[in-house]
Amino acid sequence: MRENPICVRLAALREKMLEYGIDIYIVPSSDCHESEYVSAHFRAREYITGFTGSAGTAVITMEEAGLWTDGRYFLQAEGQLKRSGIRLYRMGEPDVPTVREYVESQLGQGKCIGFDGRVMGASKALEFEQAARAQGASLLALEDLVGMIWTDRPDIPDAEIFVLEECYSGEPADNKIARVRCAMEEQRADVHVLASLCDISWLLNLRGGDIPCVPVVLSFLVMTLRTCVWYVRPSIVTDEIRNYLSKHGVEIRGYDEIYSDLKTLPAGTRVLVDRKNVNYRLLKSLPVSTVVIDQSNPTEIMKAVKNETEIKNIREAHRKESIAFTRFLYRLKTGKANLTELSAAEYLDACRAEQEHCLGQSFTPICAYGAHGAIVHYSATAETDAPILQENFLLVDAGGHYLEGTTDTTRTIAMGSLSLKQKRMYTAVLRANLRLAYAKFLKGATGYSLDALCREPLWQLGVDFKHGTGHGVGYLLNVHEGPNAFRLRIPKGEEPAELQPGMVTTDEPGVYIAGDYGIRLENELLCVEGPSNEYGQFLEFEILTLIPFDRAAILPEEMDSEELRWLNAYHQRVYETVGPYLPEEEREWLKACTARLQLGKSE
Amino acid sequence: MRENPICVRLAALREKMLEYGIDIYIVPSSDCHESEYVSAHFRAREYITGFTGSAGTAVITMEEAGLWTDGRYFLQAEGQLKRSGIRLYRMGEPDVPTVREYVESQLGQGKCIGFDGRVMGASKALEFEQAARAQGASLLALEDLVGMIWTDRPDIPDAEIFVLEECYSGEPADNKIARVRCAMEEQRADVHVLASLCDISWLLNLRGGDIPCVPVVLSFLVMTLRTCVWYVRPSIVTDEIRNYLSKHGVEIRGYDEIYSDLKTLPAGTRVLVDRKNVNYRLLKSLPVSTVVIDQSNPTEIMKAVKNETEIKNIREAHRKESIAFTRFLYRLKTGKANLTELSAAEYLDACRAEQEHCLGQSFTPICAYGAHGAIVHYSATAETDAPILQENFLLVDAGGHYLEGTTDTTRTIAMGSLSLKQKRMYTAVLRANLRLAYAKFLKGATGYSLDALCREPLWQLGVDFKHGTGHGVGYLLNVHEGPNAFRLRIPKGEEPAELQPGMVTTDEPGVYIAGDYGIRLENELLCVEGPSNEYGQFLEFEILTLIPFDRAAILPEEMDSEELRWLNAYHQRVYETVGPYLPEEEREWLKACTARLQLGKSE
Repeated sequence: MRENPICVRLAALREKMLEYGIDIYIVPSSDCHESEYVSAHFRAREYITGFTGSAGTAVITMEEAGLWTDGRYFLQAEGQLKRSGIRLYRMGEPDVPTVREYVESQLGQGKCIGFDGRVMGASKALEFEQAARAQGASLLALEDLVGMIWTDRPDIPDAEIFVLEECYSGEPADNKIARVRCAMEEQRADVHVLASLCDISWLLNLRGGDIPCVPVVLSFLVMTLRTCVWYVRPSIVTDEIRNYLSKHGVEIRGYDEIYSDLKTLPAGTRVLVDRKNVNYRLLKSLPVSTVVIDQSNPTEIMKAVKNETEIKNIREAHRKESIAFTRFLYRLKTGKANLTELSAAEYLDACRAEQEHCLGQSFTPICAYGAHGAIVHYSATAETDAPILQENFLLVDAGGHYLEGTTDTTRTIAMGSLSLKQKRMYTAVLRANLRLAYAKFLKGATGYSLDALCREPLWQLGVDFKHGTGHGVGYLLNVHEGPNAFRLRIPKGEEPAELQPGMVTTDEPGVYIAGDYGIRLENELLCVEGPSNEYGQFLEFEILTLIPFDRAAILPEEMDSEELRWLNAYHQRVYETVGPYLPEEEREWLKACTARLQLGKSE
Repeated sequence: MRENPICVRLAALREKMLEYGIDIYIVPSSDCHESEYVSAHFRAREYITGFTGSAGTAVITMEEAGLWTDGRYFLQAEGQLKRSGIRLYRMGEPDVPTVREYVESQLGQGKCIGFDGRVMGASKALEFEQAARAQGASLLALEDLVGMIWTDRPDIPDAEIFVLEECYSGEPADNKIARVRCAMEEQRADVHVLASLCDISWLLNLRGGDIPCVPVVLSFLVMTLRTCVWYVRPSIVTDEIRNYLSKHGVEIRGYDEIYSDLKTLPAGTRVLVDRKNVNYRLLKSLPVSTVVIDQSNPTEIMKAVKNETEIKNIREAHRKESIAFTRFLYRLKTGKANLTELSAAEYLDACRAEQEHCLGQSFTPICAYGAHGAIVHYSATAETDAPILQENFLLVDAGGHYLEGTTDTTRTIAMGSLSLKQKRMYTAVLRANLRLAYAKFLKGATGYSLDALCREPLWQLGVDFKHGTGHGVGYLLNVHEGPNAFRLRIPKGEEPAELQPGMVTTDEPGVYIAGDYGIRLENELLCVEGPSNEYGQFLEFEILTLIPFDRAAILPEEMDSEELRWLNAYHQRVYETVGPYLPEEEREWLKACTARLQLGKSE
């Protein structure tokens, strides 16, 4: 029997640890930018453990090796860690230590913690630093030990960079840079260090392809009130891009030069840097004589509030996505073709690809039939790929990138006759979705204030869903974007963001019956102004997604008259917007799908 | 023309300021315990300005004198400050400096700020301390200059202290003290200093009469893990109370001795003290060598979560209050007597006084007819007392103290025929009230999560109310009690409290049409456990207040079927609980008031 390759890698890593005098080596899942998704080059934790899930942390000592991951991945990790000698730590389960607690238990006078400070977030790394100091241990964050032993490491993709023209971005880069400088002046900051890839791409109106599903460019940015330097691999910067940036007053330097450049900042320099969003080595490159202003990146709120051009475009992107998704629904509901989860997802991709300016998926779609629908983060593989039968629910959560913006939609489709309970649950999820979508509220409300409006119809039935109600959506960037979100609980220390006109947030309640089915209904909501009167400025939402809900699953008698009015008005908009782009037969089908529902007999 | 007495007092105060070398003297409205209400003895700000409102701060320099108060009191303060030479600063209006900004503008090298450190909250005082330090000024917080010139100052009332027996409190004092000690151990605190009068009264199961409407005893308390010392005026402690306390391990010392006792704490002592809830001199009496643990008083959450005995009693208190209020409504709706705002309030008091164990009002009632109802903090005086006519709305917000607990209720009564708009607004406020009262929610939700459920029916009409949706209620203590509350906005830096079974919170949405009328409907809600299942522990509310809503003001066709079911079920409970205690004629009237409402024709 051949030796498990993971054991070979661990042995090689331990040799390096010995060489550098490191007792505890930590391998996180991140790149140098605290990105949610990372390219293959940065999957060091996957390389050293064999576990391919998106979230997890490995900790290796001379005697032990452990992997920490969350509930989504317990089964997968168990399988992939077999015979590796790596122990699985199930995060959140009783009596399972956190990474920090484990590291602390291994520490002691003279011990040394190590990690690659470029791929460890500053906030988390500062906790390890503190733990080491408290026990008379040391910390070495300069060495990428996994990189040293990783012989066939994938390159960073040399994806093409392109300029997002003003007809799409709505605001030239120099304007955006000037606005960030105003924000710096308000904080009396001399320098601003930006590592978040989406923020940099938004600021410079550039897009690339360095991360799957997120069209950004691996880079850093450092601004003063007069200069702006973009740190990027020179090999991917064409003359055209160089000229473009030069016109906007942006200078270019090598990707790795940022660390040495920061070290030369003069004493007393006030540096605006968001600790949650930079890596440890960046933070540590700032001389101790500088003053760190730890605030959110000013670009975070600027890019969340979409401008008029972006809003016009986003409506267009949703029209296209809604046409593609509706055609996909038509095939599902009327086609006799034998689709599986994977082939259905492919067919949706094909429908989307017919649309102009489409740049592909905004995330790996979830196409989950029956019991798979109850697994919130299910992703079909060749092994799990289930045939879609003429019964139960199919849950499809998918989205696309267009030059006109990014989309994220979920529909749950009745594939045959449903039980009364299934219809009740679908109707409750629909009511939850509509209650939030048609909310009116005073300026000052946050996504935390409104969350209960969505959950209340489910709570009345003693049901809840264990995920957020909605997240912000980027513009041809990450489909998950802050600071706006609908959430039940405010994370400790977080200042919730007020909802503002121009913010786009998803509205995606669900019900999940383990082993049976899952229902989620997701629309994107654009925050818009309502009336302004003596009570203040009212706000409301415009629903961007225009795809029919499934009337085969709706019990009108369980909805109140206002909710039915909302549903009928929504379906009318769907028909009017999407109908004209469909072939006659599909249009007639859509007309029937969106016809008025009448009040049930119980009222 | 006689000289205004305020001018004489200001001149005397300025002489004292000269004597002590003070340039800026600040007089707040508080007692030594940061109490919401204070007894006459502590109304130094009223004495020195002539302004009798409950909230305000006076600042006196050698040349100027100013009074800061909020919007509730602008008109009253304008009148009362006339010819006093004191300038009114309207807090919250544009270009009006805050007290702190004004004080800072008057400061400079060598200047001296003064105030009586016993009646200034520690958090606020620390800001003045910082302002003084920043400008090279000094601060003198030892002298009560107003007290020196206040010749006819009222005494502190020598109200009787009584023990709240275990059949009312549900838990002996030594048990409560032991629980606080556990909380101290969790924080590794050696000493706990408690100045909040309600917390002390709750802890010792004692009640008194040192503050109008709040049956507490002016006192401090200092605990260690072994000792417990109550600092109180010895003159009011009877032998019975002394024996009672001794049995519970509580020692007694003089009210003012706390300051010198704290000064003797050994270096390194860890002192648990809630800075928001102690006066400046107390905080400053702690030697700098001690370690301050600035956390909420452990008693705050303990007293907010009512025990089973308290809950049983509170239901009883609400039954009594509901009987009294219903009899009052009967008189209003059927009596031909010519009542005014003041005489109506007196009649309600008389109805309450008929109930056993009633200990008077829990706050000064608001009995506001017609346009007065739109003034949220209206309080009728002999000058404003309006006759109640056979038209428009009468708003009555009142509550009582009983041995069985404290109540707070608002009803708005149609005194004659109403306009369609008035009925629409009443119906919307009623829907708002019911939506919150019948909410079901997951444990983990706070009063901020649920607030929008209440406001949404009003927001849908473009209407809002500019006050909190609800506050916690004490048990024979302050009618306003934290930490639970229903609020739209979380104050900066505050950690919202999770709703827990046993918490009692008011539910009091309103609509206020200036110059016309006000509508507020207030019930108290007890948080109770709902089902527990795979999603977690659900919570819901039991409505404690059982007083009919006014069907003459309700439009059933504007309510959905679920809301009507809730209303009918509530009215049935009202009739079943209150009816048996009414004379036959009143019971028949109540039966008609609480009869089922049918769905309107529009559905």
